Amino acid sequence: MFISFEGTEGVGKTTLIRRIYDDFIAQGKEVVLTREPGGTPMAEQIRSLLLAVNHEEAMCNDTELLLMYAARAQHLAQVILPALEAGKIVLCDRFTDASFAYQCAGRGLSEAKLKLLNDNFVARMPDVTFWLDAPIELGMNRARERGALDRFEQEKVSFFEKVRSGYETLWQRHPERVKRLNATQTPEQVFAQAMRELQAV
Amino acid sequence: MFISFEGTEGVGKTTLIRRIYDDFIAQGKEVVLTREPGGTPMAEQIRSLLLAVNHEEAMCNDTELLLMYAARAQHLAQVILPALEAGKIVLCDRFTDASFAYQCAGRGLSEAKLKLLNDNFVARMPDVTFWLDAPIELGMNRARERGALDRFEQEKVSFFEKVRSGYETLWQRHPERVKRLNATQTPEQVFAQAMRELQAV
Repeated sequence: MFISFEGTEGVGKTTLIRRIYDDFIAQGKEVVLTREPGGTPMAEQIRSLLLAVNHEEAMCNDTELLLMYAARAQHLAQVILPALEAGKIVLCDRFTDASFAYQCAGRGLSEAKLKLLNDNFVARMPDVTFWLDAPIELGMNRARERGALDRFEQEKVSFFEKVRSGYETLWQRHPERVKRLNATQTPEQVFAQAMRELQAV
Repeated sequence: MFISFEGTEGVGKTTLIRRIYDDFIAQGKEVVLTREPGGTPMAEQIRSLLLAVNHEEAMCNDTELLLMYAARAQHLAQVILPALEAGKIVLCDRFTDASFAYQCAGRGLSEAKLKLLNDNFVARMPDVTFWLDAPIELGMNRARERGALDRFEQEKVSFFEKVRSGYETLWQRHPERVKRLNATQTPEQVFAQAMRELQAV
């Protein structure tokens, strides 16, 4: 089973993934915990390029999108597909839905471009995607408390409102795969809601 | 005018580009000399990832292709298109034809994938492309003399034979744009042949 976790900054993805990971491990399951962009040493180098704050040269939207898919291709081939073939559960912090939410809904990049990259460079979609949904201000306050903000975290509230509505679009389009979690709840409640959703799959 | 220079390793691209650059400058023209992958500080960082020899993790073909186009998108937007719009001549060491020759002909990546990247992420093709053609062994000996070999230069002769035949395919398909130069000639002769071709354009 391949499970991805999505949402804007500071909605509690890391906390939820860790709880689900611990729960699966306690059940004796084999689990791979990974993240995007990144997940392999080479893909993490691409992540560094993507997140770096560069005041000298703005990154073009196309460059950002293609770097995301370069990292994803490496991650899929080296980590996700081999783990799934070995019968392991893969928990992934962000996947292609993040490209839709951030690059298309957020930055206005054409959905057609995203679709052709998905159709040609993404061999496997998640079985379940948890979308952790909370008001943008709540998440941004949490992100700020964590320290220095990366290139994405430095975006304005209006950008994250668009990203959030992108996730909402995906949730409406793919109700069988994308499960919305109320991320204003306590971590225990979010975890309990996620486990109920998983049992229903 | 946008001119690209193509060919396998050690065929004399750098020498030819420098001569053409000097000639245009002597004529009082505004010329931008650039290269791929690279051409901007950010795209040069992507180049470093592409050329690095990594014994721990093999780079997937899709990753290589997408990184090439990420660097190209940045280079086009930041350097090539602005220079052309300002009426400058752009001389570029490698461009999309290299992706066809190295990734498709060399590595066997599907042409359909390349075409969709070209159609969606490459707004401008060169007006003239010089393909410097020489026997593979000749060029590889020159490349070896230059010192440590990068990830591409470390490939086998059979790989470069495929790359060379990829360039031959492009030359046959696009005779109006791709001009074959006999790179076994002296640098002076190659330069003279290139200038004759340019005058005929």
